[in-house]
Amino acid sequence: MAFEQQLRVPGPTPIPERVMRSAARPMINHRGPDAAVIIRDLVDGLRWGLQTENDILLFPASGTGGLEAAVANLFSPGEAGLFCSIGSFGDRWADIAAAYGVEAVRLEIPWGEALDPEDVDRVLAEHPAIEKVCVTHNETSTGVVNDMRSIAAVVKGRGKLLAVDSVSGAGVMPLPVDELGLDVVVTASQKGWMAPPGLAMIAVSPAAYRAAAAARCPSFYFDFARQKGFIDQGTTFTTPPLGVMYALQEGLAMLREEGLENVFARHQRVADMIRAGLVAIGLRLLAPEAHRSNAVTAVHSPASSPEQLKAFLAALRTRHGLVLAGGQGQLAGRVFRVGHLGFIEERDAYSILATIEQGLADHGLLSRVGLTVAAAQRVARGTQAAPEPAGAGR
Amino acid sequence: MAFEQQLRVPGPTPIPERVMRSAARPMINHRGPDAAVIIRDLVDGLRWGLQTENDILLFPASGTGGLEAAVANLFSPGEAGLFCSIGSFGDRWADIAAAYGVEAVRLEIPWGEALDPEDVDRVLAEHPAIEKVCVTHNETSTGVVNDMRSIAAVVKGRGKLLAVDSVSGAGVMPLPVDELGLDVVVTASQKGWMAPPGLAMIAVSPAAYRAAAAARCPSFYFDFARQKGFIDQGTTFTTPPLGVMYALQEGLAMLREEGLENVFARHQRVADMIRAGLVAIGLRLLAPEAHRSNAVTAVHSPASSPEQLKAFLAALRTRHGLVLAGGQGQLAGRVFRVGHLGFIEERDAYSILATIEQGLADHGLLSRVGLTVAAAQRVARGTQAAPEPAGAGR
Repeated sequence: MAFEQQLRVPGPTPIPERVMRSAARPMINHRGPDAAVIIRDLVDGLRWGLQTENDILLFPASGTGGLEAAVANLFSPGEAGLFCSIGSFGDRWADIAAAYGVEAVRLEIPWGEALDPEDVDRVLAEHPAIEKVCVTHNETSTGVVNDMRSIAAVVKGRGKLLAVDSVSGAGVMPLPVDELGLDVVVTASQKGWMAPPGLAMIAVSPAAYRAAAAARCPSFYFDFARQKGFIDQGTTFTTPPLGVMYALQEGLAMLREEGLENVFARHQRVADMIRAGLVAIGLRLLAPEAHRSNAVTAVHSPASSPEQLKAFLAALRTRHGLVLAGGQGQLAGRVFRVGHLGFIEERDAYSILATIEQGLADHGLLSRVGLTVAAAQRVARGTQAAPEPAGAGR
Repeated sequence: MAFEQQLRVPGPTPIPERVMRSAARPMINHRGPDAAVIIRDLVDGLRWGLQTENDILLFPASGTGGLEAAVANLFSPGEAGLFCSIGSFGDRWADIAAAYGVEAVRLEIPWGEALDPEDVDRVLAEHPAIEKVCVTHNETSTGVVNDMRSIAAVVKGRGKLLAVDSVSGAGVMPLPVDELGLDVVVTASQKGWMAPPGLAMIAVSPAAYRAAAAARCPSFYFDFARQKGFIDQGTTFTTPPLGVMYALQEGLAMLREEGLENVFARHQRVADMIRAGLVAIGLRLLAPEAHRSNAVTAVHSPASSPEQLKAFLAALRTRHGLVLAGGQGQLAGRVFRVGHLGFIEERDAYSILATIEQGLADHGLLSRVGLTVAAAQRVARGTQAAPEPAGAGR
């Protein structure tokens, strides 16, 4: 058994002690001056992290709630929209749109691959009526990160609105919202921002507000314009999740002390270390090299059956205290996933790798141990060239 | 100045130390066996508190999100529904319905009064096509509690579905869900349950699921049937607010140790004490005697202007650390509100009353102090007959 779990799913992420202590501050009146100070600080911090001057709207919700907010505010029933999916969460966004009566034109990429900007361009050329495009930045189910710079160039080049699911990407990998011209960016507290789940944060451009004013899907709880009015006054329309906000405030403070480039570099380094370690023992990564996420790595199952994979993950958890994620949807039983976003450092990479190795050996899936950590150490020492950096904004 | 605020708005309520420490437990995998244990415990505890065998669904949301969930699941666009409003939150529920294209037939009672079951009966007779009725149990904006027993008798007597906003009433005043036959009951973590905000909890009857299966308003994030499938498996559809759930688990444990009848009796006693104290210095309560809420008391402003009321409330906060709420909507500037729900005991009533008295004296609105606490003590000692108990379930 293990006294404390090492939680390495792709969110929720572990919470730093400083953040957890902040979360436990007494409740306050969410209509009072103390709440206004916190809300303004969160808006400032998120603008910093997302590199934007756009409004930041806060909603008591999970990331999926943020995706629903984007649909409800941007679209009208019967309107066609382009939904680019490279995995489970891309599919979900299109499903939400369909539930709202939006004509979701789906550009579906095989799970494990990245979106090709030329495909986006082609579909937009085929569907000139489409005015809004929804794209996943980091696909949590596959560990694939899309190249948002080239995708944004295509979409914005055609004058379309671009909404981005960066629930698990923002604060982990660069996503310079204003530079790329992103209109709606959805993220959530429990990923790179090192806070507990419960808050969806959405960056909204002036063009997105204009679209929202014309859109006719029903939105009340998630209404952008109403929430903006309250946030501008230093409060929120409905009672906000104060504990999560206290935590997020402290998480953002830690990230700002570290510096944004350092945050991205840390995630790059730790992800490189973990990937190098896994590859060193012959494991195969799902994502293509140019699109490997620094937030989560999906690994082809080393087990002989879905049942053996399940037993391996269960033993990691119960015997070694390491909690990894299985596969979602069509990848269930076929991959496992290592989350390496948020509160993670080099030392954690060693611990994760050594424990995975130990678990594989326990199950007769590995004969020699020690290779993963040595490979990670080489990456950390810079004696082995790190793989090319992948993903957005580079 | 005050070192620590005494938060006495009608939610969020103060959090007991035990609960706050529980909220700060490490994050876990919300798809794993540990989360299943917590979710099942929350469902058990809420069934106990709501006196129901119905399903309990959990959503990452504020109470308003819960009200939207009820609309999105129960209604179809163009369908007529009866929305009975006795204040701000009743109005909000009808506004949500209107946003979804529901034909919201509004039975609007002057703010400060309770709903008359005969009016409900009359409107239902006039609108035979209406199949679903939405009613506020405890109206947070006015401190009025509706008599849910007689209202339920009318609505269920006509074979209609009854949805109840008990965001601020449940866990404070009796609401025996199964005995009254309530189909949907919405509550939220930050009220009587003594946890931070962030979780909406909804009790759903089999008849409500049948209605949801036929309803055509768009629902995805708040979809009852999908969430039931996940809750039955010990998880939730989207990432849940784990910290809030840890806290709610401990809050429910404390309430169960106290006993449900004792919880209701404590709220009754403390509310009686506060009301007696306020009345003893000539303050006038908004709610009629038979419908006074044990969760919140709205008091007619003792000030000569809205500005003086605002200054009085600000001075209470900054000088004495007591945070009360002003009026909402049409009552802004005309009342102040004392929250007395959740984590509150007799000693708090004394402190609240003495501080209000002190603040009134500071502002020249009271010449003699000491009367409020003496009146409250008489109630506590039982030497003064307590007012008749009000509200549901009696």
